[in-house]
Amino acid sequence: MIPISRRAAAVAPFLAMDVMVAAATKARAGEDVVRMEVGQPSAPAPRAVIAAAQRALEGGRVPYTEALGLPALRERIAQDYRERHGVAVPPERVVVTTGSSAGFILAFLSLFDAGARVGVPQPGYPAYHNILSALDLVPVPMRLSAADRYAPTAALLQATHAAHALSGVLVMSPANPSGTVIGEAALAELCAAARALGLPFVSDEIYHGLGYGVPTTTALRFDSDAIVINSFSKYHCMTGWRVGWMVVPDALVRPIERLAQHLYISAPYLSQVGALAAFDATEELDAVRDGYARNRAILLDAFPGIGLGRTHPVDGAFYLYADVANLTNDASAFCRRMLDEAGVAATPGLDFDREAGHHHVRFSFAGSEAECREAVRRLRTWLA
Amino acid sequence: MIPISRRAAAVAPFLAMDVMVAAATKARAGEDVVRMEVGQPSAPAPRAVIAAAQRALEGGRVPYTEALGLPALRERIAQDYRERHGVAVPPERVVVTTGSSAGFILAFLSLFDAGARVGVPQPGYPAYHNILSALDLVPVPMRLSAADRYAPTAALLQATHAAHALSGVLVMSPANPSGTVIGEAALAELCAAARALGLPFVSDEIYHGLGYGVPTTTALRFDSDAIVINSFSKYHCMTGWRVGWMVVPDALVRPIERLAQHLYISAPYLSQVGALAAFDATEELDAVRDGYARNRAILLDAFPGIGLGRTHPVDGAFYLYADVANLTNDASAFCRRMLDEAGVAATPGLDFDREAGHHHVRFSFAGSEAECREAVRRLRTWLA
Repeated sequence: MIPISRRAAAVAPFLAMDVMVAAATKARAGEDVVRMEVGQPSAPAPRAVIAAAQRALEGGRVPYTEALGLPALRERIAQDYRERHGVAVPPERVVVTTGSSAGFILAFLSLFDAGARVGVPQPGYPAYHNILSALDLVPVPMRLSAADRYAPTAALLQATHAAHALSGVLVMSPANPSGTVIGEAALAELCAAARALGLPFVSDEIYHGLGYGVPTTTALRFDSDAIVINSFSKYHCMTGWRVGWMVVPDALVRPIERLAQHLYISAPYLSQVGALAAFDATEELDAVRDGYARNRAILLDAFPGIGLGRTHPVDGAFYLYADVANLTNDASAFCRRMLDEAGVAATPGLDFDREAGHHHVRFSFAGSEAECREAVRRLRTWLA
Repeated sequence: MIPISRRAAAVAPFLAMDVMVAAATKARAGEDVVRMEVGQPSAPAPRAVIAAAQRALEGGRVPYTEALGLPALRERIAQDYRERHGVAVPPERVVVTTGSSAGFILAFLSLFDAGARVGVPQPGYPAYHNILSALDLVPVPMRLSAADRYAPTAALLQATHAAHALSGVLVMSPANPSGTVIGEAALAELCAAARALGLPFVSDEIYHGLGYGVPTTTALRFDSDAIVINSFSKYHCMTGWRVGWMVVPDALVRPIERLAQHLYISAPYLSQVGALAAFDATEELDAVRDGYARNRAILLDAFPGIGLGRTHPVDGAFYLYADVANLTNDASAFCRRMLDEAGVAATPGLDFDREAGHHHVRFSFAGSEAECREAVRRLRTWLA
């Protein structure tokens, strides 16, 4: 008899990944599926990244690195904050992680003890809720809606703290699943409100670099003690490499180093070598982002005409979060049928919002323009 | 003011990695250091692994995989249990992980709730103690010593459970830092004792394939519900790739899948592709292991004559754990001086044993024969 822990039982499935397994199984069986379920660029990693990894492989050595990451990569990331954001970040405060997944775990473990309540956006990235639960922490939803363009505010944080006595707060901009970018003034207010309440401010900036006509601004501009989590998976098109980074306050560096030594040893070496080269690929990566902008326009243009009009402007990231209350009140069943009957894989909203998600669906437009057009064609027929 | 959680504060540094940082810093500054501090083969990954990763890079796609790993890799691992151990393991029970590190985290989170006590060998791999502490679990040392050749027994498990009311137990064979292999009869007795006590049995088999004249036997032969943790880092020479696997009972597969979806997304893609090819490299890898056997003989032969004689036969893995009570009672200071004055990096025993570690040092002999000979030469001069 194998016992299952209560905390493991409390973890919900990541529906996007369950859909991914179903879609991949269909694809392996020769079925033609348009994949819009996972937040994964269809563009390959930049040529410079591939070349750097290939050179490293020729050398034959793929060793552990220091737990905080290759020194050259930590320095290059710090340089990027200087050049791109005008923010001084010493390399010593940069932590290379095994994707943003490791960043969340290291941030939560280093900041919070069991039972601590952490404010998280809802709808939001499902791992917030589930990683916190697995680590015996309590996610407190900060309820967002289309009416407030899914943007958290200082007032919402203050009200949530008044009701729940938070130990910390996490925000994300650009956001998954809504694509919402928090404006600079609102982000400054959020940072100031968290500081006034004495709450550590965790800023998930994984979709930075993917804004459509709006800048993506780091919380470090407004709070040098913000705990920033980022990754090479999205803008840099390096999902399966599993490499990201954090910027943390001085006081957290050594506690996080100790945790990372035991929990990770180090991030994958080839991925760190590749990530270093990704900073030389801005032109190629901006061209990929311009492709997302075209995909976004295709979907925002076509969706209202095919019954998927209850969306809102997408400021950034590469998701369209559609309210499908006019079509279903069971988004999971709807997505299963959409996959089986229309050959389009998308993610039911319950992943992101346990309250209102049952009438939402998230479509990723990180694929090719042809895939987006084909998805529209299939959905038009299917929904007709 | 950034708070540090109590659980992060409770995590000890991984001294081997701290020594690694110091040694790497010296090496970058042009100093000539013999690296015996980290359990890392100096041999490159097998040619077939490198070639497979290079082919994957040429294709350009480095995507997320299913959270449980590439189906082909899970099947190949299952096949290996059939062929090498004569044990039937369905591929569905194989979980590909981001190194054994992820295996421990997934095992502990899926099995144990906060406060649970887990028996772990002492001396033992320091991450057991520190991962358990970080996850609000309580490591209970099962005290081993040279007198019992550092091998845990069923009687020790029973006594530890009687005193501490365990929720589970972890054993490792071949062991780090001692190199001890638990004999087949003793392993069968341990499995039977755990089953009789109703305790999940976690078997760390990361040094499998590295036995010197003794077989390395999987706990699955004696308990089909054992939770086995393994990795491609050691026998397969793939440390910096960060890829390993677990074999888990049916009932744990889905809870672990849900945890892995949120905590990891997936193991690194190139590493999974490489790992699949590692099964075709047995000849090359056995030759590397034969090199360890020669290194082992060099150290076991030379160490008694230079004041490092309080060792014991090393059955497997690639460590020599020396009792240095005749030389120091402060192994950390001893290792610092050894690095600074002799240019030999090794790990103080406190990493592995918070009680008796202050008079032990672990030497890894996973480097080249020339490095081992040079280490002996330097230590002979330094200790004279």
